[in-house]
Amino acid sequence: MEFDLIERIRRRVPARTDVVLGIGDDAAIVQVPADRQLVIATDTLNAGVHFPAATAPTDIGWKALAVNLSDLAAMGAQPAWCTLSLSVPHSNAAWLDGFHDGFLEISALHGVALVGGDTTSGPMSICVTVHGLVAPGEALRRDAARVGDDVWVSGTLGDAAAALRRLLPGPGEECAPLPCALRARLDRPTPRVGLGIALAGLANACIDVSDGLLADLGHICSASGVAGVVQLADLPTSPEMRSAYSAGERAVLQATGGDDYELCFTAPRSRRDKIEQLAVHAGTALTRIGHIHAGSGISARSADGESWLPASAGYQHFAG
Amino acid sequence: MEFDLIERIRRRVPARTDVVLGIGDDAAIVQVPADRQLVIATDTLNAGVHFPAATAPTDIGWKALAVNLSDLAAMGAQPAWCTLSLSVPHSNAAWLDGFHDGFLEISALHGVALVGGDTTSGPMSICVTVHGLVAPGEALRRDAARVGDDVWVSGTLGDAAAALRRLLPGPGEECAPLPCALRARLDRPTPRVGLGIALAGLANACIDVSDGLLADLGHICSASGVAGVVQLADLPTSPEMRSAYSAGERAVLQATGGDDYELCFTAPRSRRDKIEQLAVHAGTALTRIGHIHAGSGISARSADGESWLPASAGYQHFAG
Repeated sequence: MEFDLIERIRRRVPARTDVVLGIGDDAAIVQVPADRQLVIATDTLNAGVHFPAATAPTDIGWKALAVNLSDLAAMGAQPAWCTLSLSVPHSNAAWLDGFHDGFLEISALHGVALVGGDTTSGPMSICVTVHGLVAPGEALRRDAARVGDDVWVSGTLGDAAAALRRLLPGPGEECAPLPCALRARLDRPTPRVGLGIALAGLANACIDVSDGLLADLGHICSASGVAGVVQLADLPTSPEMRSAYSAGERAVLQATGGDDYELCFTAPRSRRDKIEQLAVHAGTALTRIGHIHAGSGISARSADGESWLPASAGYQHFAG
Repeated sequence: MEFDLIERIRRRVPARTDVVLGIGDDAAIVQVPADRQLVIATDTLNAGVHFPAATAPTDIGWKALAVNLSDLAAMGAQPAWCTLSLSVPHSNAAWLDGFHDGFLEISALHGVALVGGDTTSGPMSICVTVHGLVAPGEALRRDAARVGDDVWVSGTLGDAAAALRRLLPGPGEECAPLPCALRARLDRPTPRVGLGIALAGLANACIDVSDGLLADLGHICSASGVAGVVQLADLPTSPEMRSAYSAGERAVLQATGGDDYELCFTAPRSRRDKIEQLAVHAGTALTRIGHIHAGSGISARSADGESWLPASAGYQHFAG
């Protein structure tokens, strides 16, 4: 069975001429271009922690690679290769097929070759390592925000957290219908790969929003030795989010909800026009939501200019 | 706590000038030399599957990197960088400290820089990805065995399986003392990194013995389109193994026991002298245990020339 699965996977992996030796040996061999640096990211998804256990296997497969590609996007790197370590409690051909369908679908979209990995017996855990390429000195780092920078974010915020809240209502909360557009944002996040590459040379610092906007912008500020202010009224909001939650609920979900996998970046004011042009060119909304100033820490301001702090400032993914 | 741990880890990671950006951003950036290809291997260890749950945390940390370095050794690659994804059920500072002690001990021995990873909440699972470097065309592959090649193996065989059998006696088996030398072979395997690099240019095909000698030599033969014969009487045996088990028991443990992480390789007869010199130079026993002929499959012969097949030909690691 496992040999068959490996053969089926091998046939569906995107062909790349820089893969010298792919799946099937003790290790893979690839050729890194002489004028590029290698970018390495790794992220693990555990059932019941990073996704609800009932998530469809194709969506789990998609998300496992998507969250890793999002890390490359945040660096401005071009994805190239990946490995996959899959622990599953029982050998289940239908589940494995579904998982690999989702994984290979997004790997094909981005031309990423799966070059190795292993499938072991154990509680469900999915570890992916992705490799990307970047020109020397052009990577987007967390420590490059400068005083006076604007703070920008791509797409819309809070949708994944909104979906999760509908999927798993808290005690006393009513079950409400979950719009498909929100659910897709939780189960099938879109890594902003093309955008990240285009931001190299425009943005100063960049991070992907996985822990929540304030937490992630906090990582940038801490690494850069600066402070950040976010205007809550300016956070980009999907129509589904706007119709499903009140303004107060939205503020919490958008400022602290994780799993959006949008890019949050800082850039000098002088580049506003170019960034707005990029948004049109990339077909991805880019919204200015705040700025960087001297000091430390993050603050959020409501529409009336009041300082605002959510009850729970950190987002710990889904804790099932 | 986690931030403290990351800081403590960062301070202990071997410094390498080719690490452009290490732990702490969305991804790491490294510089691959223009005259080298990149070798990538990944292996996951699950508690109760790849190690007994009671294994000491320092040994688990050591083994998690060791089994990955062993994959690089089997390719003849020079280790360079690694990532670590660690899932642990509960935050336990003493366990995490012990784990990282073992992991960083072996990473320092081989000059491997830990450049990224994540620690997540979940059932214990450890996923490591290692990166090594090899000159183009010099990697040792599974598919390069040729008819007429000798089959060689490093070190001694069966010790890890022997230790496991003492640790976890089967129904009706008596508890017998476990010599420390055997236990160390299970808990602290030695990846044959220097040997693998030295074998480039001498060996044709190579693999590390993780599933068991016959299974792993079978992978070489299958990938190379050849057949292999192994002389059981010639398998290298540790003194501890010899005194703890009868000849019949030894044959099973040595031919089918996994987790030895020795290198099994094939080489032309014309290179026997050079390989014997290498053994002296490397301080690692290298033993000729069989040969490659035309055909397919693996056979094992006992001292009297009889064909021999163990009752259980496959080894599925420790199934707890």
